[in-house]
Amino acid sequence: MQTIPLLQIGLGGVGRELVRQILATEAPLARRYGFRLAHVALADTTGLLSAADGLDRAALEAILVAKEHGQSITTLPGSTTGSSWEAFPLEQRAIFVDVSAAPGHEVPLAARIAAGCRVVLANKRPLSTSMAAFTALTAHGATRYEATVGAGLPVIATLQSLIDSGDTIIRIEAAMSGTLGYLCTELEAGKPLSVALRAAHALGYTEPDPRDDLSGADVARKALILARTSGLNWEPEAVTAEAWFPPELASVHRDEFMARAEELDAPLAARVAEARAAGGALRYVATLTPTGASVALRVVPADHPLATLRGPDNLFSFTSARYAERPLVVRGPGAGQPVTAAGVLADIIATARERW
Amino acid sequence: MQTIPLLQIGLGGVGRELVRQILATEAPLARRYGFRLAHVALADTTGLLSAADGLDRAALEAILVAKEHGQSITTLPGSTTGSSWEAFPLEQRAIFVDVSAAPGHEVPLAARIAAGCRVVLANKRPLSTSMAAFTALTAHGATRYEATVGAGLPVIATLQSLIDSGDTIIRIEAAMSGTLGYLCTELEAGKPLSVALRAAHALGYTEPDPRDDLSGADVARKALILARTSGLNWEPEAVTAEAWFPPELASVHRDEFMARAEELDAPLAARVAEARAAGGALRYVATLTPTGASVALRVVPADHPLATLRGPDNLFSFTSARYAERPLVVRGPGAGQPVTAAGVLADIIATARERW
Repeated sequence: MQTIPLLQIGLGGVGRELVRQILATEAPLARRYGFRLAHVALADTTGLLSAADGLDRAALEAILVAKEHGQSITTLPGSTTGSSWEAFPLEQRAIFVDVSAAPGHEVPLAARIAAGCRVVLANKRPLSTSMAAFTALTAHGATRYEATVGAGLPVIATLQSLIDSGDTIIRIEAAMSGTLGYLCTELEAGKPLSVALRAAHALGYTEPDPRDDLSGADVARKALILARTSGLNWEPEAVTAEAWFPPELASVHRDEFMARAEELDAPLAARVAEARAAGGALRYVATLTPTGASVALRVVPADHPLATLRGPDNLFSFTSARYAERPLVVRGPGAGQPVTAAGVLADIIATARERW
Repeated sequence: MQTIPLLQIGLGGVGRELVRQILATEAPLARRYGFRLAHVALADTTGLLSAADGLDRAALEAILVAKEHGQSITTLPGSTTGSSWEAFPLEQRAIFVDVSAAPGHEVPLAARIAAGCRVVLANKRPLSTSMAAFTALTAHGATRYEATVGAGLPVIATLQSLIDSGDTIIRIEAAMSGTLGYLCTELEAGKPLSVALRAAHALGYTEPDPRDDLSGADVARKALILARTSGLNWEPEAVTAEAWFPPELASVHRDEFMARAEELDAPLAARVAEARAAGGALRYVATLTPTGASVALRVVPADHPLATLRGPDNLFSFTSARYAERPLVVRGPGAGQPVTAAGVLADIIATARERW
């Protein structure tokens, strides 16, 4: 039985679900693949908790309980208040699992790879800064990042297999914001945007500031990751997103933005009417080709797979040299803690199976 | 640079395309993952050709030319006429890649796994005999078999990731015969089955004896593989398929069957009319749940993903504990030599990355 050391960064909803899934799959994974995943360290924003031999089940369960009660992990034995995951000894090998949303991890994570570690990311940020940082992380397959795009859906692994087997990407079309997909469906049902948006906000379907969804910036980051995985050496400026709101609403306070949401109703209703008149559907689509990207509200024809999309489902359509006439399409829920954590765990298992 | 030895069984259309793809990806795979795939042996039905250090590019290209001209590989230097791949030394480690359609490989392949080898299959037969043989091949992840179901589509890898991460399959619905899908589309367009079938037969879209498609046996084999991958320990009898022809046409000569194809027109036209009257579409669908399987012509509602399927595309819909409300769906061309070979190559790469 081989022990695979993990260092986990982030104990939010996805991070806690990941701990639960690792505990629940310990016996079947040992039986099937002959390894055991051991948390040698866990970090949240308040500190680092480590155990050379791996935290045992009781310790991990205590951490889950503490976090569910809003406590910091620094209240637990073995923790170092204020110490970040970067304090973990550089000579110690582990899979570094980043399920945070924090910026600035690309350089320290690349340093761990240089020291012989592997990385698994749900955090998009380390992959969406400079191309040089992306290359430092992903060279030689040292980083897996399925959950950064489409959560648990097989998107990155599929694209990577196409590229590795010598296929060439001609076009990727993707709807990869559950929130914006949900709003499109509501608009089609005739709801004013302001009504749909306030409901979604109240239900927690949007970010605390809904402009973080409506700006399209998150979709642009995912599109950049898809482009780079396809072999395109693009800097972030290559992918810009069309926002759902005008520039004058970009810098007002969040409360003022919500209060003025009615200003978006007429322009978006006009876009929906325009799509309907053309016999199609309005979708927020990322379109990538080797020559450029578009991330925007777009009218798609009624017989296009994207037109059949409803609610928060994601859809990814890959047209390649080998899938030229008819694309390879992956569709399903692209958000949610259980499926995101499952995507991370699948990457951890693939890395562990490499016994790198 | 690590050299990964391959023994390839089968040099038909998929086998030759696999050799071409391996030659075409040598440099990028070496750069990306630091290994080189080397054919230490190639076998077809006439003999075995081996080279301890791996066949070089010129030798592989000569083999491709010989096979394209209908010659046996036994005309080439290094070959052993009449010797099967089983003559390959048992003490030599390799990835055994079976892209044949031959029966009886499950026991000798399992013996190779016991001797420390790994297996990649496009051949469905070794996985669709007894459950004991399936277990001997797949225990500890020693065999990968993405191309057995849906060719290059990410079906087995997706299902395996769901299971490994602790998800539970509730239902799989799949359309996984391009030929039967094509016929369904033609029937919906109003063509009599006999007309569509003879056209498909003339174009080589069907097996030489079209009953090999119309019996549903191939779909049943794929359904069995999906069920077993989901963790269901089913023997082959657990999955039976509805044939498109009556029992009295099962044992007549192929030519007589083709001559009597008109006898199928009225019953199938009636099924299409029935589907239309119900507001749905007629599809040949495999449905799996933990309690049983059905492989049959079925009326699917108009808003079901399967109803939107056209022509030879495959579709796989996974409903699980985590994908409960809305399924994870994979769709696209599920046959063809380039995509099948690419599925095999992706499995070889994943195995090689494990440096097992």
